[in-house]
Amino acid sequence: MGPLLSPLSRGRYDGCVSQPLGVAVLGSTGSIGRQALDVIRQLPDRFEVVALAAGRNHELLARQIAEFRPRFVAWEGDAAPALATLPDGTQTIGTEEMAIACDVPLIATAGAAGLMPTLAALRAGKPVAIANKEVLVMAGHIVRKAMVDGGGELRPVDSEHSAIWQCLWGEEGHAIRRVLLTASGGAFRDLDEAQLAAVTPEQALNHPTWNMGAKITVDSASLMNKGMETIEAMWLFDVPMEKVEVVLHRESIVHSLVEFSDGSVKAQLGVPDMRLPIQCALAYPERMPTPPAPALDLAKLGTLHFGTPDMARFPCLRLAMEAGREGGTYPAVMAAADEVAVYRFLDGDIRFTDIPIVIDATLRRHTGVADPDLDAVLEADAWARQVAASVATGAHA
Amino acid sequence: MGPLLSPLSRGRYDGCVSQPLGVAVLGSTGSIGRQALDVIRQLPDRFEVVALAAGRNHELLARQIAEFRPRFVAWEGDAAPALATLPDGTQTIGTEEMAIACDVPLIATAGAAGLMPTLAALRAGKPVAIANKEVLVMAGHIVRKAMVDGGGELRPVDSEHSAIWQCLWGEEGHAIRRVLLTASGGAFRDLDEAQLAAVTPEQALNHPTWNMGAKITVDSASLMNKGMETIEAMWLFDVPMEKVEVVLHRESIVHSLVEFSDGSVKAQLGVPDMRLPIQCALAYPERMPTPPAPALDLAKLGTLHFGTPDMARFPCLRLAMEAGREGGTYPAVMAAADEVAVYRFLDGDIRFTDIPIVIDATLRRHTGVADPDLDAVLEADAWARQVAASVATGAHA
Repeated sequence: MGPLLSPLSRGRYDGCVSQPLGVAVLGSTGSIGRQALDVIRQLPDRFEVVALAAGRNHELLARQIAEFRPRFVAWEGDAAPALATLPDGTQTIGTEEMAIACDVPLIATAGAAGLMPTLAALRAGKPVAIANKEVLVMAGHIVRKAMVDGGGELRPVDSEHSAIWQCLWGEEGHAIRRVLLTASGGAFRDLDEAQLAAVTPEQALNHPTWNMGAKITVDSASLMNKGMETIEAMWLFDVPMEKVEVVLHRESIVHSLVEFSDGSVKAQLGVPDMRLPIQCALAYPERMPTPPAPALDLAKLGTLHFGTPDMARFPCLRLAMEAGREGGTYPAVMAAADEVAVYRFLDGDIRFTDIPIVIDATLRRHTGVADPDLDAVLEADAWARQVAASVATGAHA
Repeated sequence: MGPLLSPLSRGRYDGCVSQPLGVAVLGSTGSIGRQALDVIRQLPDRFEVVALAAGRNHELLARQIAEFRPRFVAWEGDAAPALATLPDGTQTIGTEEMAIACDVPLIATAGAAGLMPTLAALRAGKPVAIANKEVLVMAGHIVRKAMVDGGGELRPVDSEHSAIWQCLWGEEGHAIRRVLLTASGGAFRDLDEAQLAAVTPEQALNHPTWNMGAKITVDSASLMNKGMETIEAMWLFDVPMEKVEVVLHRESIVHSLVEFSDGSVKAQLGVPDMRLPIQCALAYPERMPTPPAPALDLAKLGTLHFGTPDMARFPCLRLAMEAGREGGTYPAVMAAADEVAVYRFLDGDIRFTDIPIVIDATLRRHTGVADPDLDAVLEADAWARQVAASVATGAHA
């Protein structure tokens, strides 16, 4: 008997490979951007780089332009000598235009820079592969409204949210009882409070499993990163914070889980490698025939551990979930205060355990705005940076 | 913002609850049948028992008839006093007619009794909730052809196959790289070969996790049950045996997994309780709003273990997978020889470790028929019972 279309298959894939999908990589010189280009490099008949945007790593951007010959490019700051001459057929463009002039933009920029291109693409009805945390944390309600208004679609790239997303394929949103985000516990999961107060920036940057930037690595050690992910999950999967939980799982093999109304739990697993969720987000609704990462060997791994995060030792997780529950401008204030505090920690100005103190003090001084528009969000962000800086200086003094 | 239909939801559920679904429970007095009635009892506005069929437990069947007042009933043997008078509106009917005169039949009979109703329902375009192993092991190719010809659908009830099925919702069959069946390892997973040779039927019937019948409990201890599940998986998910693997997992929390072409792995988890897969199979494509079993608490469980099954100590697994790979009449011969051997073991005639010896010897004497029709399957089954009985007597002598 030949291969049959079983009733399990519900006809998403029509069997014909059309034109390569045009991808815009915003944040192409960062960790996610570079790994996205790896994925695209491996599947040249499926994906094509139509646009690249980067910050100030002009040298690397120039090499990427030479390799991929995109139609559109953008960068921050004055052009370095490397970018003085662009190849024929390559032109500069704004990042919002870029996000529309492609089949799928990958938003892998850090911070607020990803917000406007995300909104533009969603309003234009595009699917957006989103790797930027701040966009959803600061302005999740605005992003979601743009998605609904424009008919766009959000495809998570974070390994945790990609896991939840994959578990929801073929399921109904109303059947979600809980989304369970797994957390490795960060670099300091086994330290007590006194040890946490003494950790150095160098220690914080030594993450056990993932290789990431400095800010996100500190956020990972403080569990603020996981806290932000709970807020992202609210907006990505349209669930209240009451339905979001965090489970400690040190091996980072189970990337997250969903519990459904009937009690069934689904999980997505894999070796920790960002190229898989990147490829999923770009290729959806197809699964590509080649794995971008090593295969998982569960029998060889042997043991998986699960536990409950300690919110007393890691107050950032609790603060983020409270800000998410509160809504309005509170998540933006929380994220801005965290950014200030983390860089002050990295600069050696404050202790690791001062980070949640700065955030908490900033949140307490804030008077929230309900359903804020973009201006109100940005205003709250700016206000929080000032307040957090002043609190951090006080903590230092 | 109210609940939005996110692009993750793909509109299976139209929100209106129509008539209760009419369920025929074939094998209603067995373990699966009784648990199915539990599920139906909890959801009276969703499910209705329209038919009950049982074997020789006439007393229990009579009580079930009095409670559920089905339109159709069937039983084996002469009617006991309990069944002398049926309620008004209840009549006897053949099991094949019964399987067609309902919205969804649940085939929870043991052995070959489930085959004809399954084929009849599939040919009539019905969805069939199938809990009967032998049907797919003996005649998977015939069942699959009936499904394709009639436009019916198979919904697995076994916890492992239900897990794989749930992981495949929203996925494409061609994207399956491997299905990974988990195995608790059975009651004797930690015994060496000498200890295995000495186990008693009483020991074999003491399964660590699931409460099942005698035959399936011995099959579970010998890993023959898992072997049969690999063959069922081939037919349920239209994959060759090369894509089926078994992973040891003693906690029975991860019910099975699927690895996709891109390397992503999905798993379904839950406390071991057959009511969840039963409810899934009856309710599909909906998920009911109430869990039929206790909730899973992964953090409280703490640790999950995985490993590789030892085919040297448990040759039944290897024999079943070989029979499945060989196809034709070999799986039917293997299943028949196993049934004979298990009952001889339960009767104290042969040792536990003689079970695979009897099966192996029977398979070796068999000359397979490719793509056998039902008569050829039943002929092979009868032949194998005779040969296995003779081999078992030799093993005993």
